Amino acid sequence: MRRSIATVSLAGTLTEKLSAIAAAGFDGVEIFENDLLTSPLSPEDVRALLADLGLSLELFQPFRDFEAVTPERHRANLRRARHKFALMQRLGADTILVCSNVAGDPVDDDELAAAQLAAMADLAAEHGVRVAYEALAWGRHVSDYEHAWRIVEMADHPALGTCLDSFHILSRGSDPAGIEKIPGEKVFFLQLADAPVLAMDVLQWSRHHRCFPGQGGLDVAGLTAHVLRTGYDGPLSLEVFNDVFRQAPAGRTAVDAYRSLVALEESTAVRLDRSGTDGAAVAVQPARVPASDVPTGVAFAELSVPHAGALDDTLTALGFSRTGRHRTKPVTLWTQGGARLLVNADDRFDGTGLLTLGVESPDPEAAVARATALASPVLPRDRAADEVRLDAVAAPDGTEIFFCRTDRPDHASWTDDFDPEPTVDPCTDRARPAGLVAVDHVALSQPWQFFDEAVLFYRSVLGLEPDDSLEVADPYGLVRSRAVTSPDGSVRLALNVQPARYAVTDAATQHVAFRTDDILATARALQANGAEILRVSGNYYDDLEARFDLAPGFVDDLRDLGLLYDRVGDAEFLQLFTHSAGRLFFEVVQRVHGYDGYGAANAPFRLAAQHEHTAA
Amino acid sequence: MRRSIATVSLAGTLTEKLSAIAAAGFDGVEIFENDLLTSPLSPEDVRALLADLGLSLELFQPFRDFEAVTPERHRANLRRARHKFALMQRLGADTILVCSNVAGDPVDDDELAAAQLAAMADLAAEHGVRVAYEALAWGRHVSDYEHAWRIVEMADHPALGTCLDSFHILSRGSDPAGIEKIPGEKVFFLQLADAPVLAMDVLQWSRHHRCFPGQGGLDVAGLTAHVLRTGYDGPLSLEVFNDVFRQAPAGRTAVDAYRSLVALEESTAVRLDRSGTDGAAVAVQPARVPASDVPTGVAFAELSVPHAGALDDTLTALGFSRTGRHRTKPVTLWTQGGARLLVNADDRFDGTGLLTLGVESPDPEAAVARATALASPVLPRDRAADEVRLDAVAAPDGTEIFFCRTDRPDHASWTDDFDPEPTVDPCTDRARPAGLVAVDHVALSQPWQFFDEAVLFYRSVLGLEPDDSLEVADPYGLVRSRAVTSPDGSVRLALNVQPARYAVTDAATQHVAFRTDDILATARALQANGAEILRVSGNYYDDLEARFDLAPGFVDDLRDLGLLYDRVGDAEFLQLFTHSAGRLFFEVVQRVHGYDGYGAANAPFRLAAQHEHTAA
Repeated sequence: MRRSIATVSLAGTLTEKLSAIAAAGFDGVEIFENDLLTSPLSPEDVRALLADLGLSLELFQPFRDFEAVTPERHRANLRRARHKFALMQRLGADTILVCSNVAGDPVDDDELAAAQLAAMADLAAEHGVRVAYEALAWGRHVSDYEHAWRIVEMADHPALGTCLDSFHILSRGSDPAGIEKIPGEKVFFLQLADAPVLAMDVLQWSRHHRCFPGQGGLDVAGLTAHVLRTGYDGPLSLEVFNDVFRQAPAGRTAVDAYRSLVALEESTAVRLDRSGTDGAAVAVQPARVPASDVPTGVAFAELSVPHAGALDDTLTALGFSRTGRHRTKPVTLWTQGGARLLVNADDRFDGTGLLTLGVESPDPEAAVARATALASPVLPRDRAADEVRLDAVAAPDGTEIFFCRTDRPDHASWTDDFDPEPTVDPCTDRARPAGLVAVDHVALSQPWQFFDEAVLFYRSVLGLEPDDSLEVADPYGLVRSRAVTSPDGSVRLALNVQPARYAVTDAATQHVAFRTDDILATARALQANGAEILRVSGNYYDDLEARFDLAPGFVDDLRDLGLLYDRVGDAEFLQLFTHSAGRLFFEVVQRVHGYDGYGAANAPFRLAAQHEHTAA
Repeated sequence: MRRSIATVSLAGTLTEKLSAIAAAGFDGVEIFENDLLTSPLSPEDVRALLADLGLSLELFQPFRDFEAVTPERHRANLRRARHKFALMQRLGADTILVCSNVAGDPVDDDELAAAQLAAMADLAAEHGVRVAYEALAWGRHVSDYEHAWRIVEMADHPALGTCLDSFHILSRGSDPAGIEKIPGEKVFFLQLADAPVLAMDVLQWSRHHRCFPGQGGLDVAGLTAHVLRTGYDGPLSLEVFNDVFRQAPAGRTAVDAYRSLVALEESTAVRLDRSGTDGAAVAVQPARVPASDVPTGVAFAELSVPHAGALDDTLTALGFSRTGRHRTKPVTLWTQGGARLLVNADDRFDGTGLLTLGVESPDPEAAVARATALASPVLPRDRAADEVRLDAVAAPDGTEIFFCRTDRPDHASWTDDFDPEPTVDPCTDRARPAGLVAVDHVALSQPWQFFDEAVLFYRSVLGLEPDDSLEVADPYGLVRSRAVTSPDGSVRLALNVQPARYAVTDAATQHVAFRTDDILATARALQANGAEILRVSGNYYDDLEARFDLAPGFVDDLRDLGLLYDRVGDAEFLQLFTHSAGRLFFEVVQRVHGYDGYGAANAPFRLAAQHEHTAA
């Protein structure tokens, strides 16, 4: 299928948009009329630019408020249409999108609508143009795709067909299965957009909150499968109106869009293979990522430090031992149970933060091939001749993700690049393990412009499924938070967008959380080791007593050890946080009876305590 | 009435919030429980802080999901309530807000709800606490205020009353007139919030989009009048959940809130004077600003320049003459028709921009007194002994607003500080008037955090009524735009919030628009004067021909002269723009047949052309 996108989906001038679209790998574009009208390029210039860029012009859009009007208005509309058909000839466009009438005055008369559209199609045919009629979800009289198709069928004109748009169909809760009743050759165009499931005015929802397929909650793949079963062979074309993408760099948005379309084709192929119907219009699309490409654990988290030794005391107090030293780089390996940290003291870093994440991959080569196909190419990397090959891709927030097989017989292991730390030096000598068994999750701060892009990246490239989006109250605004998790729960990332103020402070926004099976014992060990534990307000513990009927003395233990507590049904969660080092802090968690969240109810207390601690 | 605000309405720590609230002049506060729980202050500390700040503690809030539950749950709820009543005693709070149950499991049984609330009230009374029960608009069974009142009436307990909240009542479209049936002594509390009229899920609307009274579209004053007629004598208390205020500096938000409450009291007083009912729940509140305080024209716009003479060529080409020179400051006066510009070349300015605005005031002293009462005190100002007194207040975006009476016999005029420019120098000699007759409007760029504050400032202090909020497509995002206009249309300000990218560019975001009665003649004069006129895409003019059936040759004139055109019904609008100088550019407009807008349909073309011109 040809891959296409509407220019309105991106920010910038028409030239910037078309260049970004071509560079991302698309085959064609829909040109949004205002993008042409505001451009200093003439239609002939645009045609030449498209040819230079190797882009086909799939659709000129939109034409509005045409059908089912008075004879006088109809004459004015045909006059307007003639102008646009002439423009399309100059531009080299052969299909025009006509949206169902939303003006205040159309008549509710399908025969009139059909007759007037047929007249438009006559005029279009004279100019070598086809008319694709689409039901807007908020059309005055025509608001669903089956109604638009009835009118097209009634008009029965070779130059008139219908345009289907996943948002307009799925936002109304229409059953997309009816699409299969439309002959494929009368589906002149297919526009695709996803959206988060919101209860709001559909026009505002459409104009501001559309997103690329896989970023929202609509079953775009299911709809696409219905359309392909009709025999439709036009492009799959993205048309997204989104307040954030409107402001983001066009090049990035185009890559994000392209990744979305490739992932959508994968999901759609699975749907086409299935027999039977596809069920509800609103459904989270299942991840269609092959098991070979989905990570099965965290191999390591790599931290930057401003100078060698900067985190040694902190990690030692957390019970980590320095067990390795990179043979050629200023990187040390720290381990405890199955948790591994790399500490990188390269000169280029001026603070403490999270640099990269290694994930355990069943097949690193397959995972890299997948990432590359999804517009996330392998990062160029300096590697000494005798170093183990370790490929990484960049997540949208800049974190590098390495695909690892740690200490497996079937594959070189990144640990081979480390010399074991032979002697117990005075520093590691102090280490007393604290019972940490693994990395539980990693929290990454996301630029607000790239949040949806990040969710799609982790979902489509790594097969991590997004949870619901949450909002957490920080003293200075709301933190938007969404976790992405591997199917077996072994890789968990919490993606957070901080309030605006964080952009101008040094507050810590990244953290690595470790799992323990006995957090009381761990907390006592940390206390004995002298770890610096964040203390939340004493009022928190009074409230815990009010909210939960906890065993006597237990709340006192929590208070003494700086632990936070949550309970959902039978599942319990306990957590503690360290003081921050640069942009980074650490967390320890214990999950009891399958608790699957991250203690969102406690997050406001942690955030407030961090602000107090920073201010103090 | 006591003036109060809920701590949740502001950003910051509890200490920061309370300090800002006291500094703004409030008498009391509602303490939002999470603000207390996350604070390092103990309840006793908070009580002492309130006493130090002179703030009364009006309400502790909220308690949730209490009533109409199973006996087992009821016992747990009473246990939780006992904890909270004890906390309130430590805090010195005597009223608790209980919101109607939103959990999944309450029973739809008013008698049970009343009995359980009465049991809570018994316990409360033992602790010297009163319970104010409020219907949340999304309550599971109890969602309107009349229902909540029926349950309170049924419980018939002296320590149980109702809490009324303007958002919960007006968002549902309930008729607030029924409030008058509730005895005033049973109205334990009144919470006030406005909101823009949005079609969306009411919970999301409430949690993210509330605003202070006068900033939205709900008739909060009408509701307040109904409540006061019951004999209610508790505080007027603001409770606003807003994503922007959550991130804005607490001190500013507190002042904004205080201004809102003073203006609301003014509007409410007018409603109380009126006999009869108050009509619909949703209505824009009429401006209640006395005519003496409302400006009747633009006296001048003052521009900064990086050095003397920097704008001379531009203003001369626009047809302005330099007619005055300030006696002591590096400021010159330029006039044309009734349009006056001050050009300030003080050393402290490093670029061209808009500094201040002089408005014609029927009574400058009254206007200043009003501004002061509305928390916008007169700005301190250096003034030479013989200079005319001219008072200014600061608008939220930093623009200083001067209250002037220009060349009137009853008042000193600011023009007296200017020596007439006696000689026609080689520069002004070139001036050929272009037919500009007055300042039509001034466009001011607003920081996004302060947009609602700005609208309320202009509305309450100057009596300028806001139009609907618009969104205009810029190549790099949406511009949010809202005009505020004096009742006679003589003072028009366009308030714009630019997309994020503008924060890091030097793009011009302020402009002064002049009115002409013959824009074709003006445009030809500007051309002859060599003025630099912004040119939009040629495609714009092709589209004009398609959209409007314009007289032959007219579109050619528009194209030749760089004019933009709009038509709504019979009303027509023509406009042109100059190239930018620093952050500033100029516009010339002609309004035909009462056109009342600003050419929003043309704005995307202007914005695109400005970006192209800057990039070129």
